[in-house]
Amino acid sequence: MTARSGLASMKKTFCLKTAVAKEIRRWTVALAAAACVSAVHAAAAPVDVPASAQPTKKPLTVADVLAGSTPADWRPIDPQSTIYMDLPAGRVIIELAPQFAPHYVANVETLARQGYFNGLWVERVQDNYVAQWGDPDAKKPVGNAQRTVAAEFERTSRGLSFMPLAEPDTYAPEVGFSDGFPTALDPKLGRAWLIHCYGMVGAGRDNDVDSGGGTELYAVIGQAPRHLDRNVTLLGKVVQGIELLSSLPRGTGAMGFYEKPEQRVTIKSFKLASEVPEAQRTPLEELRTDTQTFTDYIDARRNRHEEWFKVPAGHVDVCNVPIPVRARAAAGH
Amino acid sequence: MTARSGLASMKKTFCLKTAVAKEIRRWTVALAAAACVSAVHAAAAPVDVPASAQPTKKPLTVADVLAGSTPADWRPIDPQSTIYMDLPAGRVIIELAPQFAPHYVANVETLARQGYFNGLWVERVQDNYVAQWGDPDAKKPVGNAQRTVAAEFERTSRGLSFMPLAEPDTYAPEVGFSDGFPTALDPKLGRAWLIHCYGMVGAGRDNDVDSGGGTELYAVIGQAPRHLDRNVTLLGKVVQGIELLSSLPRGTGAMGFYEKPEQRVTIKSFKLASEVPEAQRTPLEELRTDTQTFTDYIDARRNRHEEWFKVPAGHVDVCNVPIPVRARAAAGH
Repeated sequence: MTARSGLASMKKTFCLKTAVAKEIRRWTVALAAAACVSAVHAAAAPVDVPASAQPTKKPLTVADVLAGSTPADWRPIDPQSTIYMDLPAGRVIIELAPQFAPHYVANVETLARQGYFNGLWVERVQDNYVAQWGDPDAKKPVGNAQRTVAAEFERTSRGLSFMPLAEPDTYAPEVGFSDGFPTALDPKLGRAWLIHCYGMVGAGRDNDVDSGGGTELYAVIGQAPRHLDRNVTLLGKVVQGIELLSSLPRGTGAMGFYEKPEQRVTIKSFKLASEVPEAQRTPLEELRTDTQTFTDYIDARRNRHEEWFKVPAGHVDVCNVPIPVRARAAAGH
Repeated sequence: MTARSGLASMKKTFCLKTAVAKEIRRWTVALAAAACVSAVHAAAAPVDVPASAQPTKKPLTVADVLAGSTPADWRPIDPQSTIYMDLPAGRVIIELAPQFAPHYVANVETLARQGYFNGLWVERVQDNYVAQWGDPDAKKPVGNAQRTVAAEFERTSRGLSFMPLAEPDTYAPEVGFSDGFPTALDPKLGRAWLIHCYGMVGAGRDNDVDSGGGTELYAVIGQAPRHLDRNVTLLGKVVQGIELLSSLPRGTGAMGFYEKPEQRVTIKSFKLASEVPEAQRTPLEELRTDTQTFTDYIDARRNRHEEWFKVPAGHVDVCNVPIPVRARAAAGH
């Protein structure tokens, strides 16, 4: 594990199986099938074709794909729908998902504008599960915001930008990416919902489905707890700084709550990026998930072509495709 | 997220789909199908059956299943194949898997007996990936041990105890559990291999497949990096104390290596449990994965019946089944 690259002897069986087992799903599958076919040809080169006519293009690594991206492949992360949560150790940056949880996002924005979270705490860190922040006593006034908001576990799939993964998923009929968010879809029901991948941010609730509202938030810091999908409102994802949450000491109380108040980690400030002076912002851009470059990126994750790798996986889980984010020159600078 | 329980309105569509889509796989599938059938009956109770004849058995939660387990459902974790890695913050306990990596395990045991890791360091912590320990300079003498051991990426599936999961897996033809270890299997090839779930422990290597040996070890601390399966030798799993690794500060160097020597975390000692005086041992036992109780446990993970849950997932990923481990009274005490 001192290097992460690898020779890719494409596994024919995996490719063929994928192509046969899946329904045709727009361009993703067509591309995957094409990749398999060319790999099979390369592996079993017909003897009557001159060597010079053989495919010689080196398969792309993740680094190759990103190096070959164009500026148009990236989208700026909009400060209007971005939260900066400043902890003593640094800034956690959360991109909100109003297209999935409009009322929760609006409420969190109202809470942020009022400074609701400033001076509250990360109060719970449960290993391989979630870090959660808010008011452990649930007493701080919410001002113009709502304490509870009706659940937004799912939405119609109509009008949704959706880049499907070719792979079958253990939990949902279809999975893929919608505007940078890992998304599940049920085509028969016409419903879509966000997926609890690493770094996703949701709104804690009590037993009643409508008892959340955004006053308690959590981020996933372990193996995707997919059993939470459609059980709790997801409203964003951490695009930078998740390690500031995932490396916190685990709480030793029930469900990972800190047992002593002094163990809690104070939230210095929790603000909309658009309300932070431009000089103090952290401009980021993310690889667009509706581009050919992203499709190539997924394929480079599916079959790792770095020298270190010997057996390409042939498949990839929706939660094993971290979406590339990078610093962006601030507008006008 | 303040409670983790849930009302289970069993989804008929998921059950039926599972039953249709899967090959018959021994008793696991038969049991899963039976569970679906009874749930469907309960949901659509025929009107001509008296209420007293309706199934009234409350579906079991994870806590119910464990509370109903018998002593025979648990197996002691054998000190002969257990490592205690004592860090300043506490003890990380690793169960070795000689049935999958006999030569690597033997080499790690030899290294442990010689005190090879004592005074070395956790030198790398990469967020959502791995924590790694060993000698960053790769210079410490290995004595009677080997510096490299031929790769043990997979083994024959013959003679392997295997409890298959009913669910299809994104990466492997079959997945399940073998003596407490998450395991993938290719029935056509007759091969089996360990899966990179959270907490699994492997032996780092360089680009050559045979360049590992156990002098550099790592544990998974994030979303299962399944693309590493069959690319690196897994040789055990952390059964207690993974949070001591997962909560360490992330390294800021390439691949999460600590950039400054003083950031490294010293390994106080790394010993076979059987070589530690009995009074200093941490006796543990683990739920046997070849029992009906474990099958019930998987089903309780698949469809969470705690009050908090509203939409049961209907499915479970092999890496979303943490195997219960608990303290055990020391023998003779």
